[in-house]
Amino acid sequence: MIKLYYATHTCALASHIALEEAAAEYETVRISFANEEQRKPEYLAINPKGRVPAMVTDKGILTETPAMLAFIAQSFPQAKLAPLDDPFLFAEVQAFNSYLCSTVHVAHAHRMRGHRWVDDPAAIAEMKRKVPESVGACFDLIERKMLRGPWVMGDIYTICDPYLFTLAQWMEGDGVDPSRFPKVSDHRSRMSERATVRKAIAEESA
Amino acid sequence: MIKLYYATHTCALASHIALEEAAAEYETVRISFANEEQRKPEYLAINPKGRVPAMVTDKGILTETPAMLAFIAQSFPQAKLAPLDDPFLFAEVQAFNSYLCSTVHVAHAHRMRGHRWVDDPAAIAEMKRKVPESVGACFDLIERKMLRGPWVMGDIYTICDPYLFTLAQWMEGDGVDPSRFPKVSDHRSRMSERATVRKAIAEESA
Repeated sequence: MIKLYYATHTCALASHIALEEAAAEYETVRISFANEEQRKPEYLAINPKGRVPAMVTDKGILTETPAMLAFIAQSFPQAKLAPLDDPFLFAEVQAFNSYLCSTVHVAHAHRMRGHRWVDDPAAIAEMKRKVPESVGACFDLIERKMLRGPWVMGDIYTICDPYLFTLAQWMEGDGVDPSRFPKVSDHRSRMSERATVRKAIAEESA
Repeated sequence: MIKLYYATHTCALASHIALEEAAAEYETVRISFANEEQRKPEYLAINPKGRVPAMVTDKGILTETPAMLAFIAQSFPQAKLAPLDDPFLFAEVQAFNSYLCSTVHVAHAHRMRGHRWVDDPAAIAEMKRKVPESVGACFDLIERKMLRGPWVMGDIYTICDPYLFTLAQWMEGDGVDPSRFPKVSDHRSRMSERATVRKAIAEESA
């Protein structure tokens, strides 16, 4: 059975929702960032990066949200979470998720995880100051050029949707006004009504 | 025919090498960062992110290196550039490439592209100062935990290999001593002997 290691309010929620959408048999294990469990030897044996998410499968351990989402889509093809038979459409899905991972999430991370890239406290404060602008620019591009609607890829619901929803949840905390982005906001509210999303959030909030 | 937009000394080299490995029919278009061509309307019509690489295919335009590499592997299956028939092994390939994209490349980008995340010149200087440490920590993890050898995934050559090679080329510029990482250095020297790699580099250097 799949075991998903997650922490609350992290990008692990995307894979959690995708497992629900896939009707996968899985269990979750919560890692406490407050207790720094992600840096303890027990967890580093699972994920030496000391980050979440990590997913233990029958074949081994996976990390990195875009890879985990693609794995879920390919392992549960009946759930139709990606256009698996068309390399171009599948690549479009992956390109969207890669942008979320390497640009949107990274812009956001400069608010809370600036120590990854700088030591000086004044420089960390300067990083935090620009987060509303840099994260806002990402959502502006998503709104204008990437989100086709009603779902990210248009009429088909894919593994892009839980991932966008997860990162869009961070907008207010990042000082970005969601009302600037009506398509993203509409996507977010439709996502939050899905039973799969409610179930994943309820479990993580319990 | 595939058209690859690249700039010299960028991660576009990974896709360029992969196209060579796939024996794909393709052409390349060089974008000059010195002339800021990536921000001109002609290029923004191709890639609104204003970044390289971008790849024009018969079906549309793709961006994001991990997605482009997976597309090349899936579009030219006879080149056997990824374990396409095994969702777990394919996810391992993708997880490695996602780490390069979202963590290694991002750590490196704090040397030259700090303005993405901060405005203050002193903070940009502080970012540059930590790059040898943060990039070095990434290669330390790759050396100890990720690179199986002789290729990234072990005995099979995959789309992970040109991508690792491309980012490892930046180590000296980032102030990281390659001799700390014998497996990565061995991988790099074996990669640089491949005819496909020589051809791609020669074309970009011409």
